[in-house]
Amino acid sequence: MTITMRRARREDVAAVVALLADDSRSGEGELVSDPPAAAYFDAFARLDAEPRSLLAVAEGDDGAVLGTLQLTFVPGLSNRGGELALLSAVRIAASQRGQGLGGQMMAWALDEARQRGCGIIELLTHASRTEAQRFYERLGFARSHVGMRLRL
Amino acid sequence: MTITMRRARREDVAAVVALLADDSRSGEGELVSDPPAAAYFDAFARLDAEPRSLLAVAEGDDGAVLGTLQLTFVPGLSNRGGELALLSAVRIAASQRGQGLGGQMMAWALDEARQRGCGIIELLTHASRTEAQRFYERLGFARSHVGMRLRL
Repeated sequence: MTITMRRARREDVAAVVALLADDSRSGEGELVSDPPAAAYFDAFARLDAEPRSLLAVAEGDDGAVLGTLQLTFVPGLSNRGGELALLSAVRIAASQRGQGLGGQMMAWALDEARQRGCGIIELLTHASRTEAQRFYERLGFARSHVGMRLRL
Repeated sequence: MTITMRRARREDVAAVVALLADDSRSGEGELVSDPPAAAYFDAFARLDAEPRSLLAVAEGDDGAVLGTLQLTFVPGLSNRGGELALLSAVRIAASQRGQGLGGQMMAWALDEARQRGCGIIELLTHASRTEAQRFYERLGFARSHVGMRLRL
């Protein structure tokens, strides 16, 4: 399977929302409708206008959106003023799992973060996602931190 | 102890770097010099110009910087297009710990995130910082995720 990683466009919003919704742990709060709810287009517009946020999709040979991920480049004084890349919303279509797509997406994401000059990339993954954690460990990520969340 | 939380200014950079450096786990890579290295001022300028990043300091009655934290407001499609607040670089001067300063800083941070309309606030804390984790749990944070990091 050859995929192309590219910046998401407005016409990808429905496919990205479908990927986010098709998630047993975090997807149940998403709204799936055709067309997608206006809130998603508003959020896309904010994200797309933000030079420090990069929403990407993995496109298959036939133009279908098979996966998505988001990078956010976070400035800060820590690490001698180096930027940090936050990786989030990593999703792969159920039909495409176990075929190396995740590895291709991650290679692209790590390269993007390097090109931006980031010294660190970090992510939070649900504690129950042990398979995802092993996947990230194989890429060199360390399970060094606890990820904590609060709903406001 | 009454503190004032406020946005950091350029003249706070030395104090913030000192707080970051005075950290047994993540501080050893920081450069402490007077004046601070140019890289920190460059990073501060980028951060200060970024409307989605908020570096804050806790100021004591005498104007001394006693603590710091950073909020980054991350747009995204997840959670019905709601923004997420990433909390990072939480530090309190060693002489001030255990006196409720952290609670005051966090109350301010949660309020800022709410005022920005964020639905979720999240953080990574080193796995060995069990005391910090209990502190965040008392504030309502759940240890729901694993935080993973890779140096690029």
